[in-house]
Amino acid sequence: MGLMGGSLARALRQAYPRMTIYGLDRNRETVRQAARAGVINAGSTTWDSFPGADFLILALPVRAIMCFLQEIGPTLAPGTLVMDLGSTKRDICRALRTLPAGVEAMGGHPMCGKEQAGWEASEETLFHHTTFVLCPLERTTPWALSVARELITTVGARPLRLTAARHDRLVATISHLPYLAASALLATADKVGREDPLLWEVAANGFRDTSRLASSNVTMSIDILLTNIEPVLALLEQYEDALEQLKSALQSGNEEALRSLLNAIRLRRNWYVERQQFMRGLEDWQDSSEERS
Amino acid sequence: MGLMGGSLARALRQAYPRMTIYGLDRNRETVRQAARAGVINAGSTTWDSFPGADFLILALPVRAIMCFLQEIGPTLAPGTLVMDLGSTKRDICRALRTLPAGVEAMGGHPMCGKEQAGWEASEETLFHHTTFVLCPLERTTPWALSVARELITTVGARPLRLTAARHDRLVATISHLPYLAASALLATADKVGREDPLLWEVAANGFRDTSRLASSNVTMSIDILLTNIEPVLALLEQYEDALEQLKSALQSGNEEALRSLLNAIRLRRNWYVERQQFMRGLEDWQDSSEERS
Repeated sequence: MGLMGGSLARALRQAYPRMTIYGLDRNRETVRQAARAGVINAGSTTWDSFPGADFLILALPVRAIMCFLQEIGPTLAPGTLVMDLGSTKRDICRALRTLPAGVEAMGGHPMCGKEQAGWEASEETLFHHTTFVLCPLERTTPWALSVARELITTVGARPLRLTAARHDRLVATISHLPYLAASALLATADKVGREDPLLWEVAANGFRDTSRLASSNVTMSIDILLTNIEPVLALLEQYEDALEQLKSALQSGNEEALRSLLNAIRLRRNWYVERQQFMRGLEDWQDSSEERS
Repeated sequence: MGLMGGSLARALRQAYPRMTIYGLDRNRETVRQAARAGVINAGSTTWDSFPGADFLILALPVRAIMCFLQEIGPTLAPGTLVMDLGSTKRDICRALRTLPAGVEAMGGHPMCGKEQAGWEASEETLFHHTTFVLCPLERTTPWALSVARELITTVGARPLRLTAARHDRLVATISHLPYLAASALLATADKVGREDPLLWEVAANGFRDTSRLASSNVTMSIDILLTNIEPVLALLEQYEDALEQLKSALQSGNEEALRSLLNAIRLRRNWYVERQQFMRGLEDWQDSSEERS
């Protein structure tokens, strides 16, 4: 019942007022608050009192999901549909394959988030207009896939089907590498700042924005990095190559080489931002068409 | 009369309603607009009609300032105080030293900005609560220094005196390196995206923020990089070292090493952000005290 689980419960409650939702959280106060808000019908802080469910959503860190699947997985009743929201998918999908026969399984990862964490930060609109990756297994039935798709569409997201390996490489590119890049920037600035503390007087708002990811939760980040080592290392190599290319153009003072590299990069980023805005506009238009009809 | 020159003219007009301000801009329409807004008393698109001034502010790209100093510098009248707002300071301060005897000279760099450029983007509060670096030369008189300090305080900024070399190293750390790091991130994503276009479906808002600097104006960025090659190359080396350190902790799967590195980085960034917020709060309090008194 943290940011992800709490937001999903809120969105489901909004869409299905009469659905029975059971919430699990380590924190008793969170369970109480969620029940008082009418988001869950009941809940508990331990698995022992879990009454079973048709649809079980694991909104936990990757390695906690792995532990859960190892310990509780074998006891799950056939017919239960298990979906996780873990940030990396290879290890989890491998573990989902070992669930008892008859248990339905699906890997999932909503591509959204915010800086704050926990139930307090959860909101029913968190998934609106975001991509929600689905990693079905070979054993996943068409029924399970269609249930998962409906859930995702219901909470306002776009389902995107990917293999676990493909997902992990893409998120390494757009999320895990940027986190390490921002952290290395901060480490570099810290080193300079120890020699010359006026650095921090000169650091304007631009640097605050650039280094924002370096303030991410370390425990969650390590959980992600350590379950995605190979793709992240491969991306780090590609990143170092890209840095080298810029460096050698600069080193040689080759203005035209530098200009052509940086122009191509700038055009690509602007293309991506405009594409994102266009998609967003399209979805807003579809939303308003649906409201009108 | 672009973002910097225009904002400075607006702030000066606000502080000194009867000061005579003469504006120079390549674009005739900008000069007209600034005059119509009452920000400048008069202006022109060429230097030929410039009537001379007590205080001459060069708000141009670094290499344009160098050209100006080379071509027009020798013709400046003794007693004129010349200050530039260029983004790198070593080359400019070297050129300022060659001005005719009796011309007062000062290097300057306001640590602020925004994504938009040009007169349209200029605003009178741009310098509020920002650091404004001053690089006096050996020839700079105490009078010139005090005039420059007053100007900076008047527009709401904090003067910070640095040598040109020190300035250039600090801005390489907090501005030029982050630009190259963001550009290399985008180049890496572009490469992955060419092999797997679904990358752009997965890239959420987080990636947009992280890569923002890669959309900076390329001509201005190249002007800055090419006049700050050695400090930027040195910082790139330090950055690559920091990346290597994170990479080897990840490669070895050493959770404790990774945690201690990333925790130290996170704490340093949070310290810097809190320090910035505290300073900002202090200044707001000082502002309101001044208003009360």
